[in-house]
Amino acid sequence: MNASAAVWDGHGFSLADDALPDLGPGESLVEVELATICGSDLHTVAGDRLGPTPSVLGHEAVGRVVGTGPGAPVATGARVVWTIGTSCGGCRPCRRGVPQKCVHVRKYGHQQRTDGWRLNGTLASYVHLLPGTGVVRVPEELPAALVAPAGCATATVTCAARRVGLGPADAVVVIGCGMLGLTAVAHATDLGASVVACDVDPARLDLARSLGAVAVAEPAQLPQLAASYGADVVLEMSGHHSAVTAALDVVDLAGRVALVGSVSPGPTVAVDPEQLVRRLVTVVGSHNYAPADLVEAVAFLSGSTRAGALRGLVSTAYSLEEVDAAFRAASRGLAPRVAVRPDPRVTSRSPSAPGATSGAVPR
Amino acid sequence: MNASAAVWDGHGFSLADDALPDLGPGESLVEVELATICGSDLHTVAGDRLGPTPSVLGHEAVGRVVGTGPGAPVATGARVVWTIGTSCGGCRPCRRGVPQKCVHVRKYGHQQRTDGWRLNGTLASYVHLLPGTGVVRVPEELPAALVAPAGCATATVTCAARRVGLGPADAVVVIGCGMLGLTAVAHATDLGASVVACDVDPARLDLARSLGAVAVAEPAQLPQLAASYGADVVLEMSGHHSAVTAALDVVDLAGRVALVGSVSPGPTVAVDPEQLVRRLVTVVGSHNYAPADLVEAVAFLSGSTRAGALRGLVSTAYSLEEVDAAFRAASRGLAPRVAVRPDPRVTSRSPSAPGATSGAVPR
Repeated sequence: MNASAAVWDGHGFSLADDALPDLGPGESLVEVELATICGSDLHTVAGDRLGPTPSVLGHEAVGRVVGTGPGAPVATGARVVWTIGTSCGGCRPCRRGVPQKCVHVRKYGHQQRTDGWRLNGTLASYVHLLPGTGVVRVPEELPAALVAPAGCATATVTCAARRVGLGPADAVVVIGCGMLGLTAVAHATDLGASVVACDVDPARLDLARSLGAVAVAEPAQLPQLAASYGADVVLEMSGHHSAVTAALDVVDLAGRVALVGSVSPGPTVAVDPEQLVRRLVTVVGSHNYAPADLVEAVAFLSGSTRAGALRGLVSTAYSLEEVDAAFRAASRGLAPRVAVRPDPRVTSRSPSAPGATSGAVPR
Repeated sequence: MNASAAVWDGHGFSLADDALPDLGPGESLVEVELATICGSDLHTVAGDRLGPTPSVLGHEAVGRVVGTGPGAPVATGARVVWTIGTSCGGCRPCRRGVPQKCVHVRKYGHQQRTDGWRLNGTLASYVHLLPGTGVVRVPEELPAALVAPAGCATATVTCAARRVGLGPADAVVVIGCGMLGLTAVAHATDLGASVVACDVDPARLDLARSLGAVAVAEPAQLPQLAASYGADVVLEMSGHHSAVTAALDVVDLAGRVALVGSVSPGPTVAVDPEQLVRRLVTVVGSHNYAPADLVEAVAFLSGSTRAGALRGLVSTAYSLEEVDAAFRAASRGLAPRVAVRPDPRVTSRSPSAPGATSGAVPR
């Protein structure tokens, strides 16, 4: 039995046929059920993000453990999601509570294929999980399209919510309604917060309403709407520098701004420190997440009142052979997340989720 | 018995002789033992800060309650400090935990004298405390020069420390060694943190060492020193825009920056949002404080291992007649705080603090 992997060489994809690895201590082999294409994968393919090649892209997926080395964290047969990278637990960032910045991190979907670690991304029928990876069990009944984004988009949202102290009494503004922003709308709504969503795209604002937003705004309307509904917490998920400025402008007195979207080089933002001081504003930068945030992400997805709408953010699945088409669809914004099912024979065992491949393409 | 007050008319001071007020419900009359001149008083006198006139400046003082209306918070005879203003407890800022931004606030030392509230600042022999003022008892044995700044400088520091989550394991950088910065050095040291202090003035750095700083740096040396000692928390107390930039530059991965000093209009600061995100930096604006922070300030001063050095930050006292000389001394930076003793007959009752007037003038 071999694995199929879509190998990125810096210019295009080719399918590789890899022998399954021997598993060392703490390692697992996961058969990928469904993977989703993240924005950083798109940046790599567009040439905006340089990574080592050849590599297997992809770091968002749900799958099943089919083999374990000694001391692996989860037993064979478990349906799981996992962290975007490893952490050692002993370095300074790990001890400071930011294991996502582990100095020894090895990241899925972002590293060179080596003889010891060939199946190192999720755009493959199998993924080779290394020791130090946070692995979280996923209930069988959760649709794959709902839970596949847990390991990046969803957990990044639960981490930012934790870091900014999002609570049920908060009036929340979410700026940027991509996968993270839309997930944040649902998460904040489930927590009991009221949410105003903002995006340049009316279709995305419709999705935000379906995920629980009580009001939506294009950017020009945001100040008025934030003043009406309140802005205890602003979640800036777009990464646009003007949105960072808007977040600081609309946040309430003594409010908190989470900056999440700004993960690419861009212009600086002119900030008036006197305004931050006199208005007692807190700004929290948040990037990636810690394993506990992935646990929280799965709990959120498992219990979300917006599960149906969240599942609908993920497109119908492409096959591994169709990976080029999948990336074209993703880059056109066909859906907040475009899915790839590396092996069409692999489906959820759950009779209640026969439609795991049928997430609708919005718009 | 009348009160003497140094009344500011927008151009200069004159001494007024006021009848003591009738006290309404919740009101108190406090005989001022020792007042200190805050930076905002200097801004007013320098013409950089416009306030209503005529007014009695000053909002940092220690005194004794000599009269109370019905339901006053503290009994006659109590030695006290009090908040810089009133709060109603019911408006939105009050309910959001920032009573210092109460929409009905009346601030000591910053408001027009009216028939109902003539003794409304601390540069007077008596102060008329209004309902909604936070009043905190002060141990008799605390030297007046140690505790007089509690109601502004010290409580602003304890508030910022609370808001930024300062703890014993933190490596702290304090930028700006005026009264607030030096107080922060002592407070962080008492908490068990290690402190690096930064200022442009070598004499202030010597004071920082006396307050517990393990290392000191002029601005050009700060990056290297912060890298060596760590910068879990940076307290920016100077208000200079270049110091805000430095604070964001030197803070550690996943560290926290408290912005406190920027209370005057100034240039904007160019901030790279990607750096805040990828480095998981938290920025906390902090202005003034809540009554609980004043309680904490008095507790800190009462137990500080650096009480002697803190007391030395306050100059020998000027009389109310010498108020012009006191402001000249303060504007020349003769000491981090210049003191005024409105009535030379009023001294602490404590036999252990006979030297309450003898705080040395540093340098």
